[in-house]
Parts: sequence; C-alpha cells; structure tokens
Amino acid sequence: MITSLNNSKIKHLIQLQTKTRFRKDNRQFIVEGIKMFMELPPKLHLQTYISESFHARCPKEIKEKIAGKPYECVSDKLFKEVSDTQSPQGIMAVVRMPEYAFEELFLNDRPTFMILESLQDPGNLGTIIRTAEGAGVTGVILNRDSVDIYNPKVIRSTMGSIYRVPFIYSESLSETIKKLKSHDVKLYAAHLDGKRYYFEENYTSACGFMIGNEANGLSDSLTLLADDMIRLPMSGQVDSLNAAVAASILMYEVKKQRLV
Amino acid sequence: MITSLNNSKIKHLIQLQTKTRFRKDNRQFIVEGIKMFMELPPKLHLQTYISESFHARCPKEIKEKIAGKPYECVSDKLFKEVSDTQSPQGIMAVVRMPEYAFEELFLNDRPTFMILESLQDPGNLGTIIRTAEGAGVTGVILNRDSVDIYNPKVIRSTMGSIYRVPFIYSESLSETIKKLKSHDVKLYAAHLDGKRYYFEENYTSACGFMIGNEANGLSDSLTLLADDMIRLPMSGQVDSLNAAVAASILMYEVKKQRLV
Repeated sequence: MITSLNNSKIKHLIQLQTKTRFRKDNRQFIVEGIKMFMELPPKLHLQTYISESFHARCPKEIKEKIAGKPYECVSDKLFKEVSDTQSPQGIMAVVRMPEYAFEELFLNDRPTFMILESLQDPGNLGTIIRTAEGAGVTGVILNRDSVDIYNPKVIRSTMGSIYRVPFIYSESLSETIKKLKSHDVKLYAAHLDGKRYYFEENYTSACGFMIGNEANGLSDSLTLLADDMIRLPMSGQVDSLNAAVAASILMYEVKKQRLV
Repeated sequence: MITSLNNSKIKHLIQLQTKTRFRKDNRQFIVEGIKMFMELPPKLHLQTYISESFHARCPKEIKEKIAGKPYECVSDKLFKEVSDTQSPQGIMAVVRMPEYAFEELFLNDRPTFMILESLQDPGNLGTIIRTAEGAGVTGVILNRDSVDIYNPKVIRSTMGSIYRVPFIYSESLSETIKKLKSHDVKLYAAHLDGKRYYFEENYTSACGFMIGNEANGLSDSLTLLADDMIRLPMSGQVDSLNAAVAASILMYEVKKQRLV
C-alpha cells in the first residue's frame, strides 16, 4: 500500500491533477469516482488507484474492472490529498486521452457542432459536453484559449460524457469554421443583435452554433463568419444567459426539431 | 479606513459571508462587484464597503451611488480577506433581504413557477434564477433543504437577477403545490418516466415545473402531486441533464410558446 506523497506514482498523479501542461505532455488525465470509473472505456483505461477503505468494501463489479489493469492501493489519508474532491469515493483512474480526427465528425449525415470560443469556466464546459451527448451533438470544437477539457472540474461536470462526445481543439477557429462551411454546415452565432429568435430557424440539416466567452461573448471576427445571427428572447434586465444554459437551449432546439 | 479583522463591522461582514443562520437572523446579505452593486435597488441597499484602491479610481456614477448610503473604506488586504471572490473588484454592499408574499406571485395573469426540491449546488440555483428572469418566470419556490439563496456563490451566479425574481421558501412543498393547484396552476414533474416530451405540452396557461435534487431527482411524494410527468429526450448514455440546464430548457419552452 502506498502511504507517502514522495512515492513517484503519487507525484505523477498530483501533476496530472494540477498541471494542464503535464497532462498534455503525457497524453493522460485522471477520472474520479465510481460512476466515472465504471463508464471508463477499457481501451483508454491505464491504471487504477483505490483507497484502503474503499478496497475493503468494494462491490464485485468494480473489483472485476480494477483487476483488469494495473492498480495500486493507497492509504485513505494520502488518497484524500491526491483527490480533487472534498469527499472522495475512494477510486480514481489514469486515462489515456482519446484522439479524434476532424473527418470522424462527419460520420453522421446530419451533424451538429458546438464551437466554443475561449470558454473559461470548467463547470460550463463540462455541462455543455454532458448536454451535447444528451442532445446527440456530433462534436465539440474549442480553441486553445478555452479551459482545458481534462481539468478535473470539467471531467466531473461531464458525468461520463467526456468518454463519448468527440471533441477537437482547433489552432484557428476561423480556419475550422471555413472548413465546416465547405462541408455545408450552416453556422449560427448566438448574438444580441440576431434578428430572428433561435426557434425560428430550421436545424434539420447539418448545423453548428458558436458560443463565446462568458464575460465578452463571441468575438466580432467569428461572428462575421456565421451564416446567421440568432438570439434568445430575454425578459427583465437580463442581457445574457449563462454560456452552458444558452448552449443547452440551442442544442435541445436541434434535438426537438429532429424528433418532431 | 478600516484595516483590522477585529473591527466590529468587519466581523459582521464575515459572519454575513459565511453563515446562513447569521444572514437569516439579521435579514441581511452581501453582494460583491460593480454590476451587482450598480443594480442594487436603493430600498434594499443598507451600506457599502469599498477597498482603498478602488476608492481612488472609482467612476463617478459608482461614487454617487456609494454616497447615498453609509459607507466605509477598507484596506486592500483586509478587503481581499473579507471578499468571497479570488480577485475582488473592490466594492461590496450589505443588502436587506426582500420579502415576497405568496399572493404577489399571482399578479401576473399567466404565471409560471419553478419549484425546486432540495437543490444543493449554489451555481445551479443562481443560474436557474438568472434564466428565470430571462424567461419571464413569475416566481421560484424552494424548500428549506435547498441551498441558501443568499449564499455568495448563488448571488454571484444570478448576475443581478436575485433582485428581480420573486422567490419563496416553503415549509412544505406539498402544501404549496396544493395551493398552486387550487389557483389553477398546472404542475409538471420532469421525470425519466414521463410519457410525453416536454415540448408536446401546452404551457400558454398558468403552469409550474418541479425540479429535483441533483443526485436523487424529484422525490416520489412530489412527483405524485404533479398533474403530468414530462421528459427530456436523451441520446447516448445520458440519463439526466444538469438541474439548471433541465430547468432552463423547460423555462425557455414556456417563453417560446408564449411568444409564437
């Protein structure tokens, strides 16, 4: 059983928890908790760490999954120190980063994309990925100024959808947008100046939505690349909605139009 | 200028920041930042605290608002200690809690209600209140097991809507629901077992939605009181959406139906 913060594996874990750069260099990230562990695809699963007390009362199906890969038992005190959560469930895994190719996003004949510009809040990004899976979105595209998708808070907020929603970091959103348009994807910018409400457009063909930074909204240069600007109606003194909420309302409008 | 944590006003502020009970006993709470300060209704505004450096470069319209009520200047170091944010803007105010009567919620002839059962996440509650204002919701009803609406994180996530969306803490949600039904409010429970999709119902008359706890969903006893169960369609392996997202999708469906 590992009990010391000086153990080299524990040092590696802590770096993965806290450093975006370290995650990127190692192409690894960490997931925590029973749900995230049980939904982890075997081909991405590298290693498991379990706390002493969780090991003692671990249900059979979890034990079986643990046994399939290298694992280490860790003292409860140390596990809590390494964990990113306040009340850890006692299980975490090192996961290999999946890689998605741009072309894979077009395997669906009516794709839907969410294009996120410089999104900063980990909870917002995680929530968008969770809703994206629920709404059947084909892929999420982010620029490098966005929060790291493998940040532990993002992972947690996805509730497992991180494993299943394809995403791409774009070096240049404007180039990626041009590429999407050349594939006949109609692109909408959610914008206060939009002339039509979001529900007045038809989303039954390939489409995508651009969502801007929480504080500054979408940049002018990206807004100009949109085929159309749409807006969400707003009462009272509200001039914008939370980014994850706005994105989710749009994704579910697409979902609905394709169901009815 | 106040510089010490031992100052009695500072002690009062810290208690308001950190203790639900203290806020309740004093019928006061704290708002932070320029936007929250500028939108603060004068009749609720009790006192202002400004940091030394913000005081030195404070824009005219903020100065005018500050001058209208008692205020104190606080050293930057102390201000940061009292603040609930990592990078405080240098202004906070003590605010009187507004009080809403149940009957006030019926001033609108087609009211919409959000009924929240044991919601725990401050960000979710704040986001629901923000979207509620945007969607024109009449009132939010919470039970006592829900997170305190005056928690600093809730306040911050409302982006000012806390001042404008009426809300009521209910001692018994089942009693309140019966009261709403006696006022001809049709009540929907968002539930996995719902037979119809949320967009298949008509929300143009008085209506309300019950939203359950993040981990456990809506309790059976409340679900049974609903006039109907509705569900959100979900693709992939997703079995629920984030509570604020689900609530927001429902609120905007109402908004949309009443616009078109």
